[in-house]
Amino acid sequence: MGKRGQLYEGKAKKVFETDDPELLIVSYKDDATAFNGQKKGQIADKGVVNNIMSNILFGILEDAGVPTHLVKQLSDRETLVKRVRILPLEVIIRNVAAGSFSQRYGVEEGSPLARTVLEFSYKNDALGDPLINDDHILALELSTEAELARVRDYAFKVNEVMKEFFRARGLKLIDFKIEFGVDSKGTILLADEISPDTCRLWDAETNEKMDKDRFRRDLGKVEETYRAVLDRVKG
Amino acid sequence: MGKRGQLYEGKAKKVFETDDPELLIVSYKDDATAFNGQKKGQIADKGVVNNIMSNILFGILEDAGVPTHLVKQLSDRETLVKRVRILPLEVIIRNVAAGSFSQRYGVEEGSPLARTVLEFSYKNDALGDPLINDDHILALELSTEAELARVRDYAFKVNEVMKEFFRARGLKLIDFKIEFGVDSKGTILLADEISPDTCRLWDAETNEKMDKDRFRRDLGKVEETYRAVLDRVKG
Repeated sequence: MGKRGQLYEGKAKKVFETDDPELLIVSYKDDATAFNGQKKGQIADKGVVNNIMSNILFGILEDAGVPTHLVKQLSDRETLVKRVRILPLEVIIRNVAAGSFSQRYGVEEGSPLARTVLEFSYKNDALGDPLINDDHILALELSTEAELARVRDYAFKVNEVMKEFFRARGLKLIDFKIEFGVDSKGTILLADEISPDTCRLWDAETNEKMDKDRFRRDLGKVEETYRAVLDRVKG
Repeated sequence: MGKRGQLYEGKAKKVFETDDPELLIVSYKDDATAFNGQKKGQIADKGVVNNIMSNILFGILEDAGVPTHLVKQLSDRETLVKRVRILPLEVIIRNVAAGSFSQRYGVEEGSPLARTVLEFSYKNDALGDPLINDDHILALELSTEAELARVRDYAFKVNEVMKEFFRARGLKLIDFKIEFGVDSKGTILLADEISPDTCRLWDAETNEKMDKDRFRRDLGKVEETYRAVLDRVKG
C-alpha cells in the first residue's frame, strides 16, 4: 500500500493518504500532551506501545461485534486503517470516579459509581473539549439520534469486553475515551486508539496508576509503565 | 397560617416554617446575584415582581397539568407553598442559543437550535453548579430514573405552555431554569420560581433583553424592565 501525502498531524499521531482513497496510514508519535495541550513532553516508544496495544484491542473488539477502522498493522508505529469521518465527540465511559469527573462533581478519586457512566465531550480544542449532553449534540447537529444510539451501544460493549480483558491481566479499567467515525457507506466504526493515553488502568492489587496520569501528574516511571502495560496486554 | 422560624435564606428568597409541617412560607427578597454569587446587588421591588409573576405562571401551569408547590399568595412578597425536598438539579430548557450554552459551545447568542434542549446542572455552589448528564445523576444517586423521566416530561410541558403564554405578550422565551421538589407523598412538584431572574425573555419585536441579563451585563433599566415584564404577564 503506497504511502502518499500527510493528511493531518494531531497531538499523538500523523495520518497519511494512500493509493486507495478509502484507506489511510496512521503513524503514532512519542509526543505527549495533557491539559488541552498546556503540558507537553515526550514518552520514549509511546508510539510503539499505543500502536501495538490499539491493534490488539481493536482485533478483540472486532471479534466481539464492534466494527473498527483497523485493516492491518504495517510496522511498530504504523497501521493501515479505513478512512472515516470522525464524529466530533469524545465518548467517555467511567466505571470508577476519577479525573475530570471527580473534580467536576467533588467525588473522591476511586469512589465506586452506582452505575457505569457514558459522557460525551465536544471535540473542540478552542473550547476545551466541553462536556455535552445528547440534547446539545442533536441541537447543534453534531450527530444524529441513530448515530448516538449506535455509539452508546458500542461504547458499553467495548467497556464489557475491555473490563474483562484487563481484569484477566491484573488491571482495573477505571475509565476510557474512545472515538467513532463514519465510513463512506455510512457505517459507524470504532476509530482513533485504545492505549494508556486514552484509558485509566490501575493495578488490581496495588491501585498503582498504569496510564497517562503518570505523565499528567509527574508520577515518574512513565516509559516503564507504558511498556509494562503492553507486556500485560500481549499476555 | 402562623409564620414560625426561618428555615433557610437563599440568594433571592427566605423560607419560613408554619404551624403546618407540610407548608412553608416563601418570602422574596430584592437581592440579586450573578456569576455564582461573584456579582451582588439589589433590584428594587424585584421580590414583588418575582413573587407575583411566579404565582400567575404556577397557576397556569397547574391548570395545564403540571403539579406545583403553590398554595396561595399571602402578600406582595410572600407565598404559602407545599414543603418539598428540592432535587439537587437545575433543569434548564433552551429554545435559542444564549448565555452559558453560547459560551460553552461557541455558538452566537440568538442562533436557532435544531431542537429544544434540556440540560441539568448539579445544584452545588461550591462546585459552580456544573453541567451534568443523566448517567452522572444516576451514578451519583442524585435522583432516580423515574424522577428524571417525570422531570423531563414536565419541563417540556412547562416550555410549551410558557412559550405560548409569552408569545401572546410580545416576548420570546429564549431559555429558562426551573427546579422540582418531592413532597412527603413522593409526588414531584414544580417548585422554586419563574421570573425574569430565571427566564431569558427577549422582546419579540426588538430582541431587547427583558430579564436578569440587564443586571448581569450592566445594560441599565433593570427595575423598569422587571416591572414591564410583570405588567405584560398581568396583561
